[in-house]
Amino acid sequence: MTEAQVSGTQGSGGPRIRPNIIRIAHTVFTVRNLEASRAFYVDLLGMNVLHEESGALYLRGVEDREWTLKLEQQVSPRVRHLAYRVAGEADLDALVALAEQQGLPWRWEEELDRPRVLRLQDPFGLPLAFYHQSGTHRWLLQDYHLHRGPGLQRVDHVNVMVPDVERTMRWYLDELGFRLSEYTVDEQERYWAAWIQRRGGVHDLALTNGPGPRLHHWAYWMPDITSIIRTCDILAGARQPERIERGPGRHGVSNAFFLYIRDPDGHRIELYTSDYLTVDPDFEPIRWLRDDPRRQTLWGARTPRSWFEEASELEAFDGGAVPAVEGDLTGIPAHVI
Amino acid sequence: MTEAQVSGTQGSGGPRIRPNIIRIAHTVFTVRNLEASRAFYVDLLGMNVLHEESGALYLRGVEDREWTLKLEQQVSPRVRHLAYRVAGEADLDALVALAEQQGLPWRWEEELDRPRVLRLQDPFGLPLAFYHQSGTHRWLLQDYHLHRGPGLQRVDHVNVMVPDVERTMRWYLDELGFRLSEYTVDEQERYWAAWIQRRGGVHDLALTNGPGPRLHHWAYWMPDITSIIRTCDILAGARQPERIERGPGRHGVSNAFFLYIRDPDGHRIELYTSDYLTVDPDFEPIRWLRDDPRRQTLWGARTPRSWFEEASELEAFDGGAVPAVEGDLTGIPAHVI
Amino acid sequence: MTEAQVSGTQGSGGPRIRPNIIRIAHTVFTVRNLEASRAFYVDLLGMNVLHEESGALYLRGVEDREWTLKLEQQVSPRVRHLAYRVAGEADLDALVALAEQQGLPWRWEEELDRPRVLRLQDPFGLPLAFYHQSGTHRWLLQDYHLHRGPGLQRVDHVNVMVPDVERTMRWYLDELGFRLSEYTVDEQERYWAAWIQRRGGVHDLALTNGPGPRLHHWAYWMPDITSIIRTCDILAGARQPERIERGPGRHGVSNAFFLYIRDPDGHRIELYTSDYLTVDPDFEPIRWLRDDPRRQTLWGARTPRSWFEEASELEAFDGGAVPAVEGDLTGIPAHVI
Amino acid sequence: MTEAQVSGTQGSGGPRIRPNIIRIAHTVFTVRNLEASRAFYVDLLGMNVLHEESGALYLRGVEDREWTLKLEQQVSPRVRHLAYRVAGEADLDALVALAEQQGLPWRWEEELDRPRVLRLQDPFGLPLAFYHQSGTHRWLLQDYHLHRGPGLQRVDHVNVMVPDVERTMRWYLDELGFRLSEYTVDEQERYWAAWIQRRGGVHDLALTNGPGPRLHHWAYWMPDITSIIRTCDILAGARQPERIERGPGRHGVSNAFFLYIRDPDGHRIELYTSDYLTVDPDFEPIRWLRDDPRRQTLWGARTPRSWFEEASELEAFDGGAVPAVEGDLTGIPAHVI
Repeated sequence: MTEAQVSGTQGSGGPRIRPNIIRIAHTVFTVRNLEASRAFYVDLLGMNVLHEESGALYLRGVEDREWTLKLEQQVSPRVRHLAYRVAGEADLDALVALAEQQGLPWRWEEELDRPRVLRLQDPFGLPLAFYHQSGTHRWLLQDYHLHRGPGLQRVDHVNVMVPDVERTMRWYLDELGFRLSEYTVDEQERYWAAWIQRRGGVHDLALTNGPGPRLHHWAYWMPDITSIIRTCDILAGARQPERIERGPGRHGVSNAFFLYIRDPDGHRIELYTSDYLTVDPDFEPIRWLRDDPRRQTLWGARTPRSWFEEASELEAFDGGAVPAVEGDLTGIPAHVI
Repeated sequence: MTEAQVSGTQGSGGPRIRPNIIRIAHTVFTVRNLEASRAFYVDLLGMNVLHEESGALYLRGVEDREWTLKLEQQVSPRVRHLAYRVAGEADLDALVALAEQQGLPWRWEEELDRPRVLRLQDPFGLPLAFYHQSGTHRWLLQDYHLHRGPGLQRVDHVNVMVPDVERTMRWYLDELGFRLSEYTVDEQERYWAAWIQRRGGVHDLALTNGPGPRLHHWAYWMPDITSIIRTCDILAGARQPERIERGPGRHGVSNAFFLYIRDPDGHRIELYTSDYLTVDPDFEPIRWLRDDPRRQTLWGARTPRSWFEEASELEAFDGGAVPAVEGDLTGIPAHVI
Repeated sequence: MTEAQVSGTQGSGGPRIRPNIIRIAHTVFTVRNLEASRAFYVDLLGMNVLHEESGALYLRGVEDREWTLKLEQQVSPRVRHLAYRVAGEADLDALVALAEQQGLPWRWEEELDRPRVLRLQDPFGLPLAFYHQSGTHRWLLQDYHLHRGPGLQRVDHVNVMVPDVERTMRWYLDELGFRLSEYTVDEQERYWAAWIQRRGGVHDLALTNGPGPRLHHWAYWMPDITSIIRTCDILAGARQPERIERGPGRHGVSNAFFLYIRDPDGHRIELYTSDYLTVDPDFEPIRWLRDDPRRQTLWGARTPRSWFEEASELEAFDGGAVPAVEGDLTGIPAHVI
Repeated sequence: MTEAQVSGTQGSGGPRIRPNIIRIAHTVFTVRNLEASRAFYVDLLGMNVLHEESGALYLRGVEDREWTLKLEQQVSPRVRHLAYRVAGEADLDALVALAEQQGLPWRWEEELDRPRVLRLQDPFGLPLAFYHQSGTHRWLLQDYHLHRGPGLQRVDHVNVMVPDVERTMRWYLDELGFRLSEYTVDEQERYWAAWIQRRGGVHDLALTNGPGPRLHHWAYWMPDITSIIRTCDILAGARQPERIERGPGRHGVSNAFFLYIRDPDGHRIELYTSDYLTVDPDFEPIRWLRDDPRRQTLWGARTPRSWFEEASELEAFDGGAVPAVEGDLTGIPAHVI
């Protein structure tokens, strides 16, 4: 199944095999109170507990055959890493070669169901992980009688804030073979945000301007608009309307219907449905102006300031938090509440 | 709140106060295996258990402030009675007067939360009950985090098979003040079915031709089409697709989106949403021809034979089952599977 | 069909027949540019043009058998009157008697399809109209191939801003037989808003505190949440996101899913679906605190200031605009954008 | 963008470059009455007319940037070819090499917007076409005010009846790089049907057992379940319920929500939404037994006989119709109406 790809984009040392990344796959959140997180993710959002250990929960959506969100009790709420699945073991070797060539920190780690995880820091400080082999489990997709809450379906994408969107994007396009779907520029044509993908959808990874690197949000695909509306009703029913940060609404970028919610530690989750395909060879990336009122919410709704300012700390390669730095672009878009 | 109504439709003995019936309100099903019924109504359909006694469950939808379906363990699956709520105690007296005048069997009974229930047999053998006073309970409408399964909302209507639709209908219109919404005639203009109402919707009571009297179905209002689709998915997920008898589809009559399912004893439940209002003083009943393919399902789908032939036994006034008799009209409509 | 009702709530001059009001029925908006209004109501919202005259359009939803919104080209955008349908001609006479007794201005008028309209000013300056006889037309409910845009279904309610909610509410309850569904009080238990009804739903008429009397909004029932989402998409597609003022969201009051939009003259339209029934004799009105964040939008979303401040002028009995006066309660609720 | 792939699955003549097929892309239907077809596809289904010529219409869904269905007036209703888009011009050359090696008929053709179309007959008589270069057009995805009818979104897949499912499937897997998602076997483990894909969804191509080769159906992706329900309502509203052949329902295979309709010439269209992703390297094809009642419709609904028996003729390489031949498997599954 692995498709060998010859990368011709860099001069150094002859052609190198470009790793074949399949898709964004899992994340690990550290949380301060695992029971509070369970109440949010399991009791209200209805995520399925695939495994449970002392101090950790492994969660998934109904289409996921693997765990896609690990919650781990720790003193500080952080994001341990963002993991991508690759097509074969050879792709992990190609990633090691890339790390060696570029002097990026890397090591082998292990996670439950994932015996060989390559932990690698990208040049911008993002804590990446890659794995091929995975223990998979019977999905719940057609076990509708076991679905709970709004029925989160599968991991969809991750969004990170970085101080230099364009430089970060170039590395993912050139070195990891991502393709650009949509992007936002300011009035000087500087990149404000970019949506890039491996899987043929709108994005596996979004990069947005801001002090970073930090996690902006982790997103799940939902079966339909109604299930997103139901999430709002459930949170309101539980007298936790403050967990709803933005939406529901229709994005201009991606055309998806969306909702942003915050977990008890402030980690932001997006529920997302109904975007479009990008598989065509002549797909032309869509360009938006930063202050177009239809860009963020097609309906023109304003975005709360917290959405631009707050994000989760990332765990550094040697422990502690990756320090967030400011970039050259400052300010936030117009159309803020 | 009670509105005194002077009935001028009969000659006997001067004007009589016509009872003010508010709406169809509850039923009592006897079932052979209460745990099997609980698995169906509570675990799969998500109905709320308002009360539980040895041998009985009292269920409701999320908008119901009272129990609307009582399940009682018995040797034979039957329908004990069909209960309507009336505007005041005086309306119960008016009903007693009617029973006395027409020689209909009646007595006072008691149910949980309902201390004064008038049990009355209509002239066609249907076991009716009427009550005014009721213990009500905090509804679950906005406790969305407590909703389970597809979220049945409130009792909507009851449908009975009777051997003489027209004569039965006339009695409910003349004596109980029902109003006609829609009706079906055969090619000789004989009434095949009638939908009659008190509450301003399409129907509290439907009468359909067939050996009877028997209960054809008991119906709950659903919040939307999606929740009806979800019911199908849940039953299929639980490997009980055979509980789905007909639909989902759009009725020609009533314009409602519907699904018919059968409980473990064969009692038929309809899930129903999205009909229309009938409050206008000049509302003209809608006439359908029996063999119009758009009548039963607007989309022309054929109806399974069981839907025309099978129905629940009713409990007689003195115990046992009301015997079902054939009427003059025989056969079933075209457009059957 | 008319049910005579003896009013026992006032002392003056013996019992009086209380008029039987069926439901809110139509309004007449004056607009400055009929073609701009047509583009909004017909081309985007998909309302059906039942009649067209020089300078006027008569619109309806797909369930309406009558026109329910008349647009008339005039210099100033106003609301000519708010019309209720009554059960019979005798109810119009009862309303005339009420006007005579209370010294309220009244006269007979005529509208297309409505030969005998009683125009009556209520004690608070609201321009009311009442009619019984109406030319009705074949509805479009099941002509789905003729539905356009999001498919507005039927008139649902009207909402007016008045300086004294409690006194206004009392008059409608006592004189016109309205019943209270929900109400909002401030911290001194003064009425801030009230939802009152005749039809068995949550409201035909809502009263909210503010300088007035003015029209806050005119509302249509929608078939489902999806059709409300579609309205947002259509307005955004047409590059008119600024027409969307508030929502979509779930109301705490009424539990309805809603959207507020503004027409080219600023008249506010609510699209509304999925509330509950209020027909029970012991229905207890629901009480909300003014600053409960779940009251206006169950999900806690904040409301734009314009929604509290802007409203349409009403036409006075003798022409011109009804002057808006301030009440004793000032300020707007917390939870404003 | 083209990814060179070395095929190692055949022994003949050293490694051959395997063509990189992106996705199923368009079809051409011949129809007897173009105006009747326009009434169906444009007026009722709301497809967008991208181009119009004398005797031909070029249609697309709202996400399509190209035409995806061409209708051409002819004496006989047939399917001219089934076209796939490839990653680059080199992939067309690789396909010519394959045709030469296997002795398959091929030639260059031209279509509007598609200057270089490779017409190729597969070994089983299916009329294939492949193209890389295509004139693309601004999509209508976010022009919601221009959407009509239920809003068909994009081409999704094609389904053909063939007499030997397994042999046909093997050729597509081995020569064209398709991957297997789901399959059905009879009680002797013989392949009854197979769903195979290139794009990372459930299928670009489905193969089902029956006399053939014939076109079983051509499918469009829909935005949601509601839009599929709306299609039924629209066809019923237009008094054409007979155009609805099967559904709506939930497939067991693919988990998609579906509807099958027939155009005026009997060509079958599926409207389809909500399946799942198959991009993972260890995705294991899902196996179904032919007579599992949940396979075809998860809810257990029976399938009309016409759905198994009727299909569209395919155009032969040299004109006329490809003759349909019977295979070794006969009969149709249980669970038929």
